[in-house]
Amino acid sequence: MSIRIEKDTMGPVEVPADKYWGAQTQRSINNFKIGGEKNRMPIEITRAFAILKKAAAQTNAELGVLDQDKADIIGKVCDEILAGEHDDQFPLVIWQTGSGTQSNMNSNEVIAYRAHVLLGGSLEDAKKKIHPNDDVNKSQSSNDTYPTAMHIAAYKMVMETTIPGVEKLRNTLAEKAEAFKDVVKIGRTHFMDATPLTLGQEFSGYVAQLNHGLKALKNTLAHLSELALGGTAVGTGLNTPKGYSELVAKKIAELAGQPFVTAENKFEALAAHDAMVESHGALKQLAVSLMKIANDVRMLSSGPRSGIGEILIPENEPGSSIMPGKVNPTQVEALTMVAAQVMGNDVAISIGGSNGHFELNVFKPLIASNFLTSARLIGDACVSFNDHCAVGIEPNTAMIQRHLENSLMLVTALNPHIGYENAAAIAKKAHKEGTSLREAAIALNLLTSEQFSEWVKPEEMTGSLK
Amino acid sequence: MSIRIEKDTMGPVEVPADKYWGAQTQRSINNFKIGGEKNRMPIEITRAFAILKKAAAQTNAELGVLDQDKADIIGKVCDEILAGEHDDQFPLVIWQTGSGTQSNMNSNEVIAYRAHVLLGGSLEDAKKKIHPNDDVNKSQSSNDTYPTAMHIAAYKMVMETTIPGVEKLRNTLAEKAEAFKDVVKIGRTHFMDATPLTLGQEFSGYVAQLNHGLKALKNTLAHLSELALGGTAVGTGLNTPKGYSELVAKKIAELAGQPFVTAENKFEALAAHDAMVESHGALKQLAVSLMKIANDVRMLSSGPRSGIGEILIPENEPGSSIMPGKVNPTQVEALTMVAAQVMGNDVAISIGGSNGHFELNVFKPLIASNFLTSARLIGDACVSFNDHCAVGIEPNTAMIQRHLENSLMLVTALNPHIGYENAAAIAKKAHKEGTSLREAAIALNLLTSEQFSEWVKPEEMTGSLK
Amino acid sequence: MSIRIEKDTMGPVEVPADKYWGAQTQRSINNFKIGGEKNRMPIEITRAFAILKKAAAQTNAELGVLDQDKADIIGKVCDEILAGEHDDQFPLVIWQTGSGTQSNMNSNEVIAYRAHVLLGGSLEDAKKKIHPNDDVNKSQSSNDTYPTAMHIAAYKMVMETTIPGVEKLRNTLAEKAEAFKDVVKIGRTHFMDATPLTLGQEFSGYVAQLNHGLKALKNTLAHLSELALGGTAVGTGLNTPKGYSELVAKKIAELAGQPFVTAENKFEALAAHDAMVESHGALKQLAVSLMKIANDVRMLSSGPRSGIGEILIPENEPGSSIMPGKVNPTQVEALTMVAAQVMGNDVAISIGGSNGHFELNVFKPLIASNFLTSARLIGDACVSFNDHCAVGIEPNTAMIQRHLENSLMLVTALNPHIGYENAAAIAKKAHKEGTSLREAAIALNLLTSEQFSEWVKPEEMTGSLK
Amino acid sequence: MSIRIEKDTMGPVEVPADKYWGAQTQRSINNFKIGGEKNRMPIEITRAFAILKKAAAQTNAELGVLDQDKADIIGKVCDEILAGEHDDQFPLVIWQTGSGTQSNMNSNEVIAYRAHVLLGGSLEDAKKKIHPNDDVNKSQSSNDTYPTAMHIAAYKMVMETTIPGVEKLRNTLAEKAEAFKDVVKIGRTHFMDATPLTLGQEFSGYVAQLNHGLKALKNTLAHLSELALGGTAVGTGLNTPKGYSELVAKKIAELAGQPFVTAENKFEALAAHDAMVESHGALKQLAVSLMKIANDVRMLSSGPRSGIGEILIPENEPGSSIMPGKVNPTQVEALTMVAAQVMGNDVAISIGGSNGHFELNVFKPLIASNFLTSARLIGDACVSFNDHCAVGIEPNTAMIQRHLENSLMLVTALNPHIGYENAAAIAKKAHKEGTSLREAAIALNLLTSEQFSEWVKPEEMTGSLK
Repeated sequence: MSIRIEKDTMGPVEVPADKYWGAQTQRSINNFKIGGEKNRMPIEITRAFAILKKAAAQTNAELGVLDQDKADIIGKVCDEILAGEHDDQFPLVIWQTGSGTQSNMNSNEVIAYRAHVLLGGSLEDAKKKIHPNDDVNKSQSSNDTYPTAMHIAAYKMVMETTIPGVEKLRNTLAEKAEAFKDVVKIGRTHFMDATPLTLGQEFSGYVAQLNHGLKALKNTLAHLSELALGGTAVGTGLNTPKGYSELVAKKIAELAGQPFVTAENKFEALAAHDAMVESHGALKQLAVSLMKIANDVRMLSSGPRSGIGEILIPENEPGSSIMPGKVNPTQVEALTMVAAQVMGNDVAISIGGSNGHFELNVFKPLIASNFLTSARLIGDACVSFNDHCAVGIEPNTAMIQRHLENSLMLVTALNPHIGYENAAAIAKKAHKEGTSLREAAIALNLLTSEQFSEWVKPEEMTGSLK
Repeated sequence: MSIRIEKDTMGPVEVPADKYWGAQTQRSINNFKIGGEKNRMPIEITRAFAILKKAAAQTNAELGVLDQDKADIIGKVCDEILAGEHDDQFPLVIWQTGSGTQSNMNSNEVIAYRAHVLLGGSLEDAKKKIHPNDDVNKSQSSNDTYPTAMHIAAYKMVMETTIPGVEKLRNTLAEKAEAFKDVVKIGRTHFMDATPLTLGQEFSGYVAQLNHGLKALKNTLAHLSELALGGTAVGTGLNTPKGYSELVAKKIAELAGQPFVTAENKFEALAAHDAMVESHGALKQLAVSLMKIANDVRMLSSGPRSGIGEILIPENEPGSSIMPGKVNPTQVEALTMVAAQVMGNDVAISIGGSNGHFELNVFKPLIASNFLTSARLIGDACVSFNDHCAVGIEPNTAMIQRHLENSLMLVTALNPHIGYENAAAIAKKAHKEGTSLREAAIALNLLTSEQFSEWVKPEEMTGSLK
Repeated sequence: MSIRIEKDTMGPVEVPADKYWGAQTQRSINNFKIGGEKNRMPIEITRAFAILKKAAAQTNAELGVLDQDKADIIGKVCDEILAGEHDDQFPLVIWQTGSGTQSNMNSNEVIAYRAHVLLGGSLEDAKKKIHPNDDVNKSQSSNDTYPTAMHIAAYKMVMETTIPGVEKLRNTLAEKAEAFKDVVKIGRTHFMDATPLTLGQEFSGYVAQLNHGLKALKNTLAHLSELALGGTAVGTGLNTPKGYSELVAKKIAELAGQPFVTAENKFEALAAHDAMVESHGALKQLAVSLMKIANDVRMLSSGPRSGIGEILIPENEPGSSIMPGKVNPTQVEALTMVAAQVMGNDVAISIGGSNGHFELNVFKPLIASNFLTSARLIGDACVSFNDHCAVGIEPNTAMIQRHLENSLMLVTALNPHIGYENAAAIAKKAHKEGTSLREAAIALNLLTSEQFSEWVKPEEMTGSLK
Repeated sequence: MSIRIEKDTMGPVEVPADKYWGAQTQRSINNFKIGGEKNRMPIEITRAFAILKKAAAQTNAELGVLDQDKADIIGKVCDEILAGEHDDQFPLVIWQTGSGTQSNMNSNEVIAYRAHVLLGGSLEDAKKKIHPNDDVNKSQSSNDTYPTAMHIAAYKMVMETTIPGVEKLRNTLAEKAEAFKDVVKIGRTHFMDATPLTLGQEFSGYVAQLNHGLKALKNTLAHLSELALGGTAVGTGLNTPKGYSELVAKKIAELAGQPFVTAENKFEALAAHDAMVESHGALKQLAVSLMKIANDVRMLSSGPRSGIGEILIPENEPGSSIMPGKVNPTQVEALTMVAAQVMGNDVAISIGGSNGHFELNVFKPLIASNFLTSARLIGDACVSFNDHCAVGIEPNTAMIQRHLENSLMLVTALNPHIGYENAAAIAKKAHKEGTSLREAAIALNLLTSEQFSEWVKPEEMTGSLK
C-alpha cells in the first residue's frame, strides 16, 4: 500500500496515500483494533457530523470568524459526504475514545483534506489550505460535536425509521381490530380458558399498546432535540462567537429537517446523556410491548393441529430442514429477538449514561451505537413483521368456534343470577364429568335450559352489545 | 393457635380463629412459603385495594346492583384499613399467583368478615352477612382490581414520595448553583484537567439533569393515571352495570386525591403493564442521573489530602472502624446503591412486562413490588442525600484555586490568537518541564507576558462574562 | 422513649435507653431514613457477623492480642445473637455506607455493650468494660469484616436453601422423566407441531438443565469460600497478628460448618466482589432455566378445554374472584416472577460489582442484599413449585393421544424412504385438505398403506427403541 | 442483475444467477430486511457450519447412509468455505427465524450447489447432483445444527480470542505488580485517603480478579463443549444412523481442534441454551472486573496537575480537538465501553435463553450474535488496552510520595499503642489545623516524636515486611 506522511501535534504518522484522512484518524486505526468492521462508527453519525460541520462553517462565516470561502468549500465537502461519496473515509470503530474525539477528527481531517484537493492542492502537501482544527473544527470541540451528532442521528432515526415502522404495524393491527370486531372467541387468563371477548377486542389491546408506546416515544423528543453544540470543551462555550449556539442549532434544524434547538444547559448536554437514556427507555417500552404482541401471535397461531390455532398467519418459507411441510412463525421470532436485543441495549445505555464524570460523559460512542441499533431494529422489524405477517392474519373460525363452545368459563355469566359459589359448582361438575355447562347446570337443578340460553350468550359477554 | 374452619369452592380450610381472613387467603399462606416477611405484598397495595373496594361498593350501590347498607359497611371497613387498623390481616407474599388474585381475595375476605363482625356477626358463623365475592368483589375481578391497585399505589408513591424527594434535592442543587456561580475552577473531561468553568455551572448541569428527569417522569403520569377497573375478567366488563367504569374511576380519584381516569382500552390495561414499564423507565432515568451526580460529589470531595478535594461535604459519622478520624461520603454511597438497585429493578419490570399472555399479564405483584421499591427509594434517598449531604456542600476554595492556577488547559484560550498547534507546543513544553504556561509561552517566543495576561483569563473562559 | 447518651469520636448521641447499640448505630438510624423496615440489613448478615466476631475474638486470644476473658464474653454474646435473642438490636437499613461500616459497628456496639451488661455493668456507664473498636473489632476493619459476613451468609444460603431447593425439584422432575418414559407425545418446535418424543424425554431436558445449573453454581463456590478477613483496612492486614488470617478462617469454617478459607489475595477481596458476581451469575442461570421449565409446565397444562392440555397439574386454590371453577398454574407464576426478579437482581449486582474504586468496593450491602434475596427465592420457590405442583404432574393421556394421532410431522419418518420433497408434498396435501398423512400419501401414490404403517411408527421415532 | 429460478417445496424463487444459494436463502433475504449489513450472521457461525457439515458428511459416509463421493465433494466445499472463498455467499441477517433454519439452509444450498458446479454441473440445472436437504443436511436438522455451530463458534472464540486476550493483560499486570512491589503509596477507601499499601499490591488485586475470571470462564467450557448434533428435529435423533452422535462430535473435535463431545441430553441442547448463558455469565464477570480495573487506571492516572496522578500511562494521541496538548486515557474508555456492552449483552442473552418453548429455543441467532460479540470484544479490548496502555504504566513517584507523606490515615498504626479514640483525636486535630500527624500527636501529649517515628512506618504498614 502506498503511504504518505501526515503530522499532528504528536508527530508524523504514515497514512494510506489515497485516503483523505490524516494523522489522528490513523492513530485511532492503529491503536484501536477492537471488534472489526461490524463495529464501525455508525454511518448515521458520520452523516450527522457532515450536517453539523456544514452548519458550523456557515455560522462561523456569518458571525465573522471564518472566511466565507472556507465555509463554502467545507460545506461542499459535507454535501459530498451526505451524498454517500466518502463512506470509505470513515474507518474508525466505536471502541475508541469515549468522547468520540477521533471520529470528530476523522470528519475534520477528511473535510479539510478533501477541501484542499478540491481547491487544487495535493494530499502530499505538508500544509493544507484548510486546517482540520482551526477551520473545520472552529468554534467546536469533540465534546459538543459528538453529542450533537448523536442527537441528530438518533432523532432522525426515530423519526424516519422507528416511528413510521411502528405506525405501519399499529395501523395494520387497527384494521384487523376493526375487521375482527364480531369474531367472538374464548379469552385466556393465566394461559387458561376464561370468559369470551372478540378477536377485534384482543387486537385493540395491541393497538393501545403501540399507541401508548408511540406517545411515550414522542414525549422524549423534546429532550432529544436539544443540541450540545456551542458548549465546546466543557460547556462554557469557550472560543465561540456571540450568538453562535442559537444560530448553529437553527442551521442544523434546517439542514436536517428536524426541529433541533440549542440545549438550555450545555453542561448537562456534555456530561450526561439522559436524553438518550430517556428516548431509549421509550424504545425499550416498545420492545416490551412488541414482545407481548408477538408472543400472542405466536401462540394464537400455534398448531396447525395440536396448538391453539385460532389465527392463521402467512406461510412464507419452508420452516424446517428436516420436517417436510412445516411452517413456522418466523416473523414473530425475528421480532421477539429484536425485542430482547433492545432490552439488553437499554442496560448498556443506562450503564454508559450513569458513568459520566465531571464535565464529560465518555461512553458516547457506546450510547450512540446501541441507540441507533435499537431504533433501526424496531422500525425495520415492525415493517417486516407487518408486511410478511400482520397484514395476512386471518381468524381460523372453525377452531375459534370449537374453543368457544367448549368453554367452561361462560359460567361466569351466571354469577349475578345464582351467585359465585353455585356457578363454581356447575363449572366443576362439567369439568370433572366432561359434559357441557348446560348439562351440569340442569343436573344440579340450579337453572332451567331456557334460563341457561337466556343468560349465557357469549356474544353478549363480550360487552360489544352494551 | 386457636383455629376455625372457613370454606371456599374447594372445601374447608383451617384459619387462625382471630383473623378476619378466610379460606383463600389461608390457601395462599399454605401454598406460597417463599421469601418470608420481607416479601409481603406492599402495604401501599393493601391500602390501594381499600380505596378501590370502597369506591366500587359506592358505585355499585349508586348504580343499583348493591344494597346501600352493604356498600356503607364495606366502606367503613375500608376506612379502618386505610387508618392502618388491620395491617396484620394481610400476610400474603408477592410470590403468589401472578394476577394478585390471592391478595384481592385477602382484601375481599377481610372486608367481608370484618363487616360481618361490625354487623354483629361472629367469625365462627358459617355464613357471613357480606360475601367476599358476591358483595365486596361485585363488578370486579382480580384481573382489573389488582392492576388498579397497582396504579393507585404507584401513582401515589410517585406523587407523594418520589417527586417531592427529587424536587427537594433539585432545589438545593439550584441554590448551590446560584451560590457558587462565581467560583471559577478547573474543568475535567476524560477525568483529566480541562478548561475552566464555575462551580455553579457544574452544579447547574445537575439541576438540568433532575429537571429533565422530573419532566420525563411527569410525562408518564397520564398513562399511569389510567385504571383497569371495569374490565373485570378479560377486559370486556362482563358483570358490570352500565356507566360503572367511569363512575368508579371518578370515585377513586376523589378518594385517592389524584386525577385517575378509566383506561380507554381495558384489554391493554389487563394484559400489559406498559404504563408501569413507562413510569419505571423514568425512575430508571432518574437513577442514571443520580448516579452521575452522586459520583461527581464523591470525587469532588475526595481527599482530604490526596484527592481532588474541591468541595467539602458534611461529616456525619465516623467513617471507619479501624482508621481513626476517617470521614466518608456515606450519603453518596447510599444514593449510588439505590441507583444500582433501580437499574436492576428496571430489568425485572421489563421482563415481567414483556411476558403477558393473551388477556392477562401474570407478573403483576413482581411489577408492583419493584416499582414501589424504586419509587420510594429514589424519593427517600434524595431526601437523605439532600438533608445530610447536599445542603452542606461548600467549595474548598484553597484547593480550587491551586488546581486552577496549575492548569495547563488554560492554553486553549490562545487558540484563536496563535492557532491550535502553537498552543499545543506551549502546553507540552510546560507539562514536560513542569513550568507554568506563561513561562513556556515566552520561552517559545509565541507571545509576550502581557499578551498572556490579556488572553488567558480563567474567569472569562467560563463564559460568565459574555 | 427513655434515652441515654453514648459517645463516639464525633461526640455524644442520644440512644434508646434499653437498646444495646451505641452512638454509631444511632447516627446511621438518624442519617439513613431510606426504604423502611423491609430494607433492613438481612438477618443472615447479622448472624454471619456473630460468627466472625466470635472467631476473631478467639483467634485474637489465641494469638495473644486479646485477653481470654474478653474473648469468652464476646463469644458468649455472639452465641446469643446466633440463637436469635437480639434480632431487634440490628435496626439498620442496607442503604447506608457502602462499606457496611455502620452494620459492623452495630455488631461491635451490641456485642460490647451486651458483654458489659453480662459482666455486671450498666448501659448507663460512660465507659464499658468491652470496647467496640479496640476489643470486639480487634484485628478487623469494616472493610474486611463486611465482605467476610457477606460470603458467610451467601455461602450458607446457597448451601442450605438454594441447592437443596433446586435438588428437590430436580429429583421430582427426574422421577417424572422416568415415570413418563413411555408416554409418546407430539413434539413442538417454534410453538408448532413437530416430530414426536416421549413426555419423559421432555422432562429429562429439564433435569439436564437443573443438573447443569447446579454444577455451574457449585463451580462458583470455591471463589465464594474465600474470606477477606485479615485484610483489615486496605488489604495489607495492618494491625493483625501473625497467622491471623489463616486461623480466623479456620475457626469461621468450624463455626459455620462450611469450608471457608482465607482469600489468597486480600486486595481483590476488599476492592472487588467478583465472587458474588460469579455465584449470582449461576443463580441467574438457574433463573433462566426455571423460567423455561415453568413456562413449559404452564403451556403444557393450559386449558382445560381450549389449550394444549397434555399434562395435569394440582388444583390448589380457586383461581379467580369472578370466574367460578377456574384453576390456574399459580405455582408456575410465582416461580417465573422469581426468575424475573433474579434476572433483575443480577444487573444490580453487576453494576455494584463493577463500581469498586481503588482499595474498596462500596456497594457491599446492595450486593449482599440482592444476592441473599435471589438465593433464598430460588430455593424457596423451587420447593413451593415442587411440593404444590411438580410432584402432582400427570399426563393427560387422552389429549396426548389425540394430538399425536393428528400430527402431520410424523411425515418426517418418510424422508429416508421417499426424500424430503416428496414427504413435504404429503404433509402439505394433508394439511390443505384436512386429511390424515396416510390418506394423502396414498392419494399421491408415493407409498402404500402397508409401507406407511411400517415406516411411520411414532414410538420408534422417539428413539427410545434404538 | 441476472437471475435464475430455484425451487423449494413452496415453489419457484428468483435468485441472482451468479450466487450459489438457492430458494430458501433467497426467501430469507426477501422476507427479513432488518438491520442491514452490520447484522449479518457472524462469519464465525458460517465457518462453524462448514466444519459440522464436513464432519456430518464424513460420518454419514462412514456409517453407510451417504455415498463416499458425495461426502468427499461436500467436504471439499466446506474446506473452501473455511478458507474464506465464499464469504459473500452468506448474506442473511441474524433477525430471521429464531432456529437459524435459514442460515442452515444457506449453508446446505451453497454447499450443494457449489458441489454441483465442482462436479461439472451448472447453476442453471433444475436438478443438482447434491441435494441441500437429502445430502448436505442428512442426519441433521436446523434444530441441532445451529446450536452445534453456535457452540463451535463460541468455544473457538473464547479459546482463540477471549482467553488469550485476558491472559495477555493479566500477565502484564502481574509483571507490573512485581515491578511495583516496593512502591509504597497511599490507599484509598470510599474514594478517601486510607492506610498505605504498595502499588504492586494494588495491581496484584487486578491480577487476582482476572485469574478468578479466567477460572470462572474455564469452568463453563465443559458445558459449552457439548454439541447438540445428533438430536435432529426435537432431540430424539430421528433419522440418524446408530452411533452418529458420538462419531460426528469426535470428527468435529478433530476439525475444530477443540475437545467437543456429544451432549449427554439432546433435549436440553435444543430447547435451552444454558451453556451459552453460563459462559456469557463468565464473560460478564470479566466485564465487571475490567470495568473496575480500567476505572482505577483512569483515576490513578488523572491529572496531569489537578488529579490523583499516581501513575503515568502512555500518551497515544492528541486528546482533544480544541484543548491543545491534552492527553486522555482513551484505552480505558474503550475498555469500559466494552464492559458496558457486555453487561447489556448479558441481559439480551438471558432473556433469549429463558424464552425457549417446548422442544426448541428460538432465540438462537440473538444468543449467538451477542455471545460472539462479547467474547471478541473482551479479547480485542484487553489486547488493545494491554498493548497501548498497560505495558506502559509507570509510577509517578513524586506524586505518590507527596500523597503518602500527607496522609492522615497513617495514624491507624497507633491504634494498638494508644487506642482508636486517641488516634482519632490526633487525626482530627491534624486535619482541622492542617498540620502533620506528628505535630498533632506531640501537641496532644499522646506520644513522643521518637515513638511516632518508631510506630508509624508506612512501608511496614503495607505488611510487606511481615
